Amino acid sequence: MAEIIRAAIAGYGNLGKGVESALLQNPDFSLEAVVTRRDPASLQPASGAKVVKESEIAALKGQIDVLFVCGGSATDLPEQTPRFAELFNVVDSFDTHARIPEHFAAVDAAARKGGNLGLISVGWDPGLFSLARLYETVVLPQGKDYTFWGRGISQGHSDAIRRLPGVLDARQYTVPIPEAVEAVRSGQCPELTTRQKHKRECYVAAAPGTDLDKLTEQICTMPNYFSDYDTTVTYVSLEELRTQHRELPHGGFVIRNGHNGPEGKYRQTMEFRLDLDSNPYFTGSVLAACGRAVVRLSRKGETGCRTILDIPPALLSPLDPAELRREFV
Amino acid sequence: MAEIIRAAIAGYGNLGKGVESALLQNPDFSLEAVVTRRDPASLQPASGAKVVKESEIAALKGQIDVLFVCGGSATDLPEQTPRFAELFNVVDSFDTHARIPEHFAAVDAAARKGGNLGLISVGWDPGLFSLARLYETVVLPQGKDYTFWGRGISQGHSDAIRRLPGVLDARQYTVPIPEAVEAVRSGQCPELTTRQKHKRECYVAAAPGTDLDKLTEQICTMPNYFSDYDTTVTYVSLEELRTQHRELPHGGFVIRNGHNGPEGKYRQTMEFRLDLDSNPYFTGSVLAACGRAVVRLSRKGETGCRTILDIPPALLSPLDPAELRREFV
Repeated sequence: MAEIIRAAIAGYGNLGKGVESALLQNPDFSLEAVVTRRDPASLQPASGAKVVKESEIAALKGQIDVLFVCGGSATDLPEQTPRFAELFNVVDSFDTHARIPEHFAAVDAAARKGGNLGLISVGWDPGLFSLARLYETVVLPQGKDYTFWGRGISQGHSDAIRRLPGVLDARQYTVPIPEAVEAVRSGQCPELTTRQKHKRECYVAAAPGTDLDKLTEQICTMPNYFSDYDTTVTYVSLEELRTQHRELPHGGFVIRNGHNGPEGKYRQTMEFRLDLDSNPYFTGSVLAACGRAVVRLSRKGETGCRTILDIPPALLSPLDPAELRREFV
Repeated sequence: MAEIIRAAIAGYGNLGKGVESALLQNPDFSLEAVVTRRDPASLQPASGAKVVKESEIAALKGQIDVLFVCGGSATDLPEQTPRFAELFNVVDSFDTHARIPEHFAAVDAAARKGGNLGLISVGWDPGLFSLARLYETVVLPQGKDYTFWGRGISQGHSDAIRRLPGVLDARQYTVPIPEAVEAVRSGQCPELTTRQKHKRECYVAAAPGTDLDKLTEQICTMPNYFSDYDTTVTYVSLEELRTQHRELPHGGFVIRNGHNGPEGKYRQTMEFRLDLDSNPYFTGSVLAACGRAVVRLSRKGETGCRTILDIPPALLSPLDPAELRREFV
């Protein structure tokens, strides 16, 4: 049995609950606390963990080995992860790809200052898909890779619809286009536009009296979110939306079509695929495993920031190296 | 540009040629020599590399950073890899799963004695499939994983047929059974027997006058190789065998059906899949990338034996960490 890892979770939304649930599946973890900006009395963690007010988080110093920072990437994590990294080893799921370099730099500086180790941008994309892109590219340097997402709920796109006047609630599914997927799987290395790769399906509950034609047009022409895609809008009742579309499924795949051998005559295809009933519970499970590696590397004296590309895979497992060689190699 | 890595290849069969071809796709490698037990004058490496007699391999000491050991797992590698690991950093593709612990121990002792680093059992299974099994299991500790191989040529099974009297040549394809694959992909977590997972298709060129009914029975009842499978035998001419079945395609996938969330209510599926026109050229490409990581870890002072589970993924790439974060995370 591996040594017990004392953990805390900051933020008790979908992802925080996902991490909590994952820790319960991993007996080498002990969840010491859930940290919240809300009134602690308003939270009843499923695990029974104690609830700590965020303003008192420093009291956990010395009591935990790793903190899972489960805020949102837009505004929470850029501020929280560096701040917490001065106090604790941290793991987050920062997923704004373009801002990863600056987030890395901020967490790196804070973690070094505190003598801690931070691991950022963990989950499946970024995270496992980052790993897939790397392994596929190093093995097949001559080739082209494709990432498809879905079928699954995009929270950002759902939120964008929710902000429109007349919308009571909405869910947006990102859907890979089968013809594009087939062309890639068959090894044709097609050049695909944004519109050719994915379509967007919106389910919307609108307030009575809303001009639905106008709302549909507002959605379909929204720049950055929908204007570059073929988008369908289906109006449903609030009840139907909240019963038939209540879960957060997702998935997707990273595929690389490469060539090697004499004159590149051999086509070699690598694919990593996820099919997820629940995005936040899956993401939480990735964070949990990564927390184990962070604690081990920290105990060896490592400090600063890392991504999953830096983590020796064996450190993610509770098994010792000899067991791993027997059971996994 | 990364620092140049000076490499040599021991053994110039299919895999050795695959490594040579892969090194040509990776401009940070320089192939210094091909090492052979044959008459050096009989080899003309495609890359133009010089050929060194194996008995003179010690002369390469100080001239190369890593040696790719490309012999067979049955008798070559158990003897060669430890012997060479005393002299050089080494990478091999040892694939007899049950004997990996003892091979690891032998290479570990020899590499430590020589102050070198060895990486064993690299390729796709063991290798990339080992990684897939590990990543899938750490993320979804509650679940069941399945490995399917094929459709592809099994050299071991082809050789087993070739040893039978009356056989001029043979190729054996391992074929996953579609119904089993479907059951697994649909998340049913079925219990599958050996016979339910794969079938074996044999193409055999027999000598004139051979009793084909008897030969078919000999093949299909051969213990360890065919008796536990549904096997078909098709007789073809030697010419057809060598033109229609001359390549060495392979592939397969590792899939894990896991459950997490409250009461394990969410089904989460992870899959890593390969579809390869050429098994040895793909395997050679995996070895090449791993050689880069071995040299980097050796330059940091690491010695002993490793498997791919121990290797930080970022070290497989010629790019520096900041580039990797920008392009892959």
